[in-house]
Amino acid sequence: MKLSKLVGDRFKERPANCQIESHALMVRGGYIKNVANGIYSQFPPMKRISQKIEAIIREEMEKIDGQEVLFPVTLPGSLWEESGRYESVGSELLRFSDRTGSKMVLGMTHEEAAVQLVREYANSYAKYPFMIFQIQTKFRDEARPRAGLIRVREFTMKDAYSFHTSQEDLEEYYQKCYDAYNRIFARCGIPEVVVVASDSGMMGGNISHEYMLLTPAGEDSIAICPECGYSANVEAAPSIIQNENKVPMEGLKEVDTPHAGTIEELCNFLQIDAKNTAKAVVYQRNEDDSYIVAFIRGDLDINETKLTKAAGCEVHPAVIEDDSVLTAGFIGPVGIHKDVTVLFDSSLKGIDYLVTGANKPDKHYTGFQVDRDCPGAEYVDLAKITEGSICPCCGKPVIQISRGIEVGNIFQLGTKYSKTMNFTYTDENGKEQYPIMGCYGIGVGRMAASICEVRHDDYGPIWPITIAPWQVHLCCLRSDDAACKEKADELYETLMRQGIEVIYDDRKVRPGAMFADADLLGVPVRVVVSPRNLAENVVEISTRDKQIDKQKTPIDDVIAEVEKIIQKLTDDVYSHVK
Amino acid sequence: MKLSKLVGDRFKERPANCQIESHALMVRGGYIKNVANGIYSQFPPMKRISQKIEAIIREEMEKIDGQEVLFPVTLPGSLWEESGRYESVGSELLRFSDRTGSKMVLGMTHEEAAVQLVREYANSYAKYPFMIFQIQTKFRDEARPRAGLIRVREFTMKDAYSFHTSQEDLEEYYQKCYDAYNRIFARCGIPEVVVVASDSGMMGGNISHEYMLLTPAGEDSIAICPECGYSANVEAAPSIIQNENKVPMEGLKEVDTPHAGTIEELCNFLQIDAKNTAKAVVYQRNEDDSYIVAFIRGDLDINETKLTKAAGCEVHPAVIEDDSVLTAGFIGPVGIHKDVTVLFDSSLKGIDYLVTGANKPDKHYTGFQVDRDCPGAEYVDLAKITEGSICPCCGKPVIQISRGIEVGNIFQLGTKYSKTMNFTYTDENGKEQYPIMGCYGIGVGRMAASICEVRHDDYGPIWPITIAPWQVHLCCLRSDDAACKEKADELYETLMRQGIEVIYDDRKVRPGAMFADADLLGVPVRVVVSPRNLAENVVEISTRDKQIDKQKTPIDDVIAEVEKIIQKLTDDVYSHVK
Repeated sequence: MKLSKLVGDRFKERPANCQIESHALMVRGGYIKNVANGIYSQFPPMKRISQKIEAIIREEMEKIDGQEVLFPVTLPGSLWEESGRYESVGSELLRFSDRTGSKMVLGMTHEEAAVQLVREYANSYAKYPFMIFQIQTKFRDEARPRAGLIRVREFTMKDAYSFHTSQEDLEEYYQKCYDAYNRIFARCGIPEVVVVASDSGMMGGNISHEYMLLTPAGEDSIAICPECGYSANVEAAPSIIQNENKVPMEGLKEVDTPHAGTIEELCNFLQIDAKNTAKAVVYQRNEDDSYIVAFIRGDLDINETKLTKAAGCEVHPAVIEDDSVLTAGFIGPVGIHKDVTVLFDSSLKGIDYLVTGANKPDKHYTGFQVDRDCPGAEYVDLAKITEGSICPCCGKPVIQISRGIEVGNIFQLGTKYSKTMNFTYTDENGKEQYPIMGCYGIGVGRMAASICEVRHDDYGPIWPITIAPWQVHLCCLRSDDAACKEKADELYETLMRQGIEVIYDDRKVRPGAMFADADLLGVPVRVVVSPRNLAENVVEISTRDKQIDKQKTPIDDVIAEVEKIIQKLTDDVYSHVK
Repeated sequence: MKLSKLVGDRFKERPANCQIESHALMVRGGYIKNVANGIYSQFPPMKRISQKIEAIIREEMEKIDGQEVLFPVTLPGSLWEESGRYESVGSELLRFSDRTGSKMVLGMTHEEAAVQLVREYANSYAKYPFMIFQIQTKFRDEARPRAGLIRVREFTMKDAYSFHTSQEDLEEYYQKCYDAYNRIFARCGIPEVVVVASDSGMMGGNISHEYMLLTPAGEDSIAICPECGYSANVEAAPSIIQNENKVPMEGLKEVDTPHAGTIEELCNFLQIDAKNTAKAVVYQRNEDDSYIVAFIRGDLDINETKLTKAAGCEVHPAVIEDDSVLTAGFIGPVGIHKDVTVLFDSSLKGIDYLVTGANKPDKHYTGFQVDRDCPGAEYVDLAKITEGSICPCCGKPVIQISRGIEVGNIFQLGTKYSKTMNFTYTDENGKEQYPIMGCYGIGVGRMAASICEVRHDDYGPIWPITIAPWQVHLCCLRSDDAACKEKADELYETLMRQGIEVIYDDRKVRPGAMFADADLLGVPVRVVVSPRNLAENVVEISTRDKQIDKQKTPIDDVIAEVEKIIQKLTDDVYSHVK
C-alpha cells in the first residue's frame, strides 16, 4: 500500500473532546471517524488491525472446538420476551418496530439467538458439549459513550456460547476458555491483562470473570490484594467491615440538629465520628420511581451495582421533592414511611451507638441500634470496597484499587436461558433436562483502543507486530531524487514479494512530516531510504519501540534483516503465550 | 471437523413455505435457520461458504486498488437528510429513534456514510481516484421477503464506492470493476452470469448494470436479443413500438358502452382490436394518494419502474372509491378531472383511431387521436418489453424474456451525493469541483443461495470447490468396525495435515443416512472407507458432481489422488476466469 493513496488524514493537533490518549491518537492517525454519538466508521488502518485481532480470536476459538456461526443484528422482540429480557433490560437495549409494527431489538448480546439456533438440534445428551461463536456487529444504546472506541454504541464483538449437560462439564470448558482468552490477549501483545472476579449483571448466572487491562485511563475499578493475589471488580468484591464498638449502648433519643443535613455537618454539630452514624442513601426504582433507602456507615459509600442486585431492579439516584414522604437530610429507619423500602448495609452490624435521621426536619436520633430498634433487620453487602479494605480472601487490610479497561468477559450462565426459553434435551435415562450454558465475549474495537492506550508514546501508537496494520513502514526520504526513488520502489516490490506487509511512503513531503505520519501509524519496523545513506550503500532500519534506532544496514542485507526483526518481534510476543 | 459434532440438523422432509429449491436445500442441509420474517441465522456450513465468497470478493476488490473500511450499521437520520434520501426512500429504509430521541436509520446502502468518511480527506484532485469498500451487515425492510437467502431483510453485502475527478476516469474504473465482478462470479463457480443494463432506481445516476444469474427461479425478468446480444432488465429495456395505422381518422364521438369496463369487454362490444384502444392504468402517489393515470395501447402493460421514474415519486396501484374524481372502467384523457396527472405511453403515438373512456359511466369515445384531442401531449416510455418485442439495439422483433437472480450491481452515480452533501475538492486550477462517484454491490448470502439454485440435484447442493464449506467429505461406513475406524481416523488426520479441509462422518449411522447427509452438505470430493473395500486395500472416491463415481483407489494413493482431484476441480473453475 502506498501512503500517498491511503484513505484518511493524519494531523498534529489534538482533537477536542478526547479525554484519553488512545482516542486522540486514533483520530489523529486516521484510524476512525465519528459518525454519530458513540458510532464510528473505520479507515483502512483500523480495519486492518481489527481483521488481525479477529483472526487471532477465531483461531483460538477454533482450537477449543468453537464453531463459527452468524446471528442477526436485528432480532424479533418476541425472542427477548421469551427470556424476559425484553422487559428487564434498560434502555441500553434499543427497541424499535419494523414496517409491519412488529417489535424488534438491535442485538447487544445473543444468548436468546444462540438458544433459538440450537434448541431443536441439541435435543439429546449425545450432542453435548459444544460451543458456537460469531464475530458480528452489536449495538448497545449507551447513555454516555466516551473515550473513542473504548465505550461506544455500535461495536464488533466476538461472542461465544457453550452448552453442557453438567456443571462440572461447564466448569471444565470454562477453564479452557479462560486459558484461550489469556492466549488471545498475549498474542495481541497485552499479556499483562489480569483476570478478575466480576458481577454477572443482566447476563444472569453466578460465576463470571472479567479480563482487565490495567491503565489509569480505565473506567472500571479493580480491587487487588498484593498479599494473596485476590482480584475482583469493585462491583463484585465483597466489602468486609470489622467494627470497633467504641461508644456504649444508650436508648433511642430524638435530638435537635438544626441544618445538619449532611454527615459532615452532623458529625461537627454532635462532635461524633462518622463511623457512629447511619447514613441514608436514597434511590428510586426506574419502573415506578418508588423509593429505596440504603443505610450505611457514614464513612462508607454505596456501590450501585451491589444495590441494584439487592433491590432486584434497575434504580437511579433519587430526586426528593418538597412534598415527598422523605425528609431530605434527616432520613432514618425508625418511623420511615411504610411505602419506602429500607436496606441495611453490613457495615452497620454490631455497632451499639449510631446517630441517624428522625424523619423530621432538623431532628436526628442518637443511640440508634439496628437490631434493637428495627427488629428482624437483615444486612446486605452494599458498600464500595476501598483502598486499604480487608481482603475477602486473605483477610489482610491491604486492598489496592487500580483502574482498568475490561477487554473480555466470561460467564457461567447456568440454566437461566434454557429454562426461560424452554430448551431441553433428553439425558441418558430418557429424562428431559435443561442444558447449562456459558458465554464468552471480547470486543474487537475496544481491544484495539486498549492496546493503543497501553502501547503508545507522545507521537503515536506502538502496535504489537501481531496486530499492526502493516509490518514494515518504508520511507523514501527524497522522492524527487531518481536514484533514491528507484531503490525505494525496488525495496517495496521485493518486500511485498516476500509476503511482508508494507506501507510505502512515496510522497514528496518533508522528512519531519513523513516521520510524524509513520509514528502515528505505529508500524513496528521502519526502513528509511535516503540519498545520503544510499551513497554509503545502506539504509536505516528502526523499530517503532526504539529498541533498534537508525541501524545502518547494507542494501543487500535489508530483506534478511527485516525478516529477522519481524521474527524477533513476533517471538517476543509469543514468549508470553502459555 | 467431525460431522458428529457439527451444529445443525439435516433432514429429508421438504419444509413448508419453500418455493424454490435452494431455500429448501439450505434449510434441509442445516445451513440457515429462520429467526424472523426475512431474517436468518447461519449454521457453520453457511458461515464457511460466506467466508470463502467474502475472501474471493476481498481479493478482487484489492486487486483493483480497493481499500477495506467499515461503516456503521446504524446511521444518524441527519446524514440521510443531507442526501434527501431520508424522505425520498420508502419504508424499505428502517427509521427509528435512539434513547435520546435522535432519528436513526439502519444502513441499507452506504453512499452517505462513504461521503461522510472521505469528504475532508479527499479535498484535492491529487487524492483521486480511489475506491473504498466494506463487507458488512445491511438491513432493508422488504415488504415481501421470500426464497430463503435470495430476498431477505438482513444480509451481508460487499459495497464499494469509487471517487473520480472526471466522467472518463469513472468510466475507466467502472470497466475495471465490471471485469473484477466477472472474475468474482467465475471464481465462485458461476461464470455464466450475464451483465445487463439496468435501472438505477433510488441510487440515482444514469448508467448501471446488473449481474444476472439466469434461472427460472429468478424474480427479475431480463430482455435478451439472441441476434445482437443486447440484454437488459425489463425495467430498463426501452419498449419500441411500431404502430400500423389500420383504422382511418374520425372525429371524437361519445358512444354507449354499457358494462364494458375492461379492454376485453370493450373490444368485444365494439368489435375492435385492442391495439385501437387507449387503456387507462391508474396509480396513486405514496405521499398524498393523488392520482396518476397512464394511458397505454390496450394490448400492452405498464412497467411500474418506468412509471415511477416518469412520475418522479413512489407510487402504488390505485384504489378508486365510488366518490372518486375518476369513473373506474371508463377513464379517458379527454375531460378528465384537472387534479389528475395524465401520462401517455409512446405506444399511442401515431395511431389515428383510438377508443378511450369518456369519464362517464358506460360511455367511451371513439375516434380519439392523442395529438389532436390533447394538444401538447408528451409521450414517455412506460410499456413492459415482452417476448417478441423489437430489440432496442438491432431493431429485430426477436426479444426473449428470461428469468434471473441479480447477484451484483454497479452504478455510475455521477455527482448526486457529492452535490447534495456539499462534498468538493480543489482541482488543478484551484477551483472547487464535485467528485464523481461510482458504487458497486454484491450480496454474499444471495450469491450463495443463487449458486445453490443453479448447482444442485435432487439430493442437495453441488458446491463449486472454491466456495464449498469443506473440500473433502470423509465417510467411515462402519465406525463400529475397529479396523475401518482406525483407517478412517488416520486418513482424516493425514488429509488435515496436508491442509485439506475435511468434514469427517464418524457417526454410527446407516450408509443411506450418511450419504444423504453428504449429498446435503454438497462437498465436492467424497472418500468412503468401508470394511469391504479395506479388504482389497482400497477406498472409494467420488465427486459430488458424479464426474468421478466410486473410483477404487489404493489406500497409499488416496492423499495424492484427492489432491489431484481438488486441483482439477479448481482448475476447471479457474478456466472460466478471464
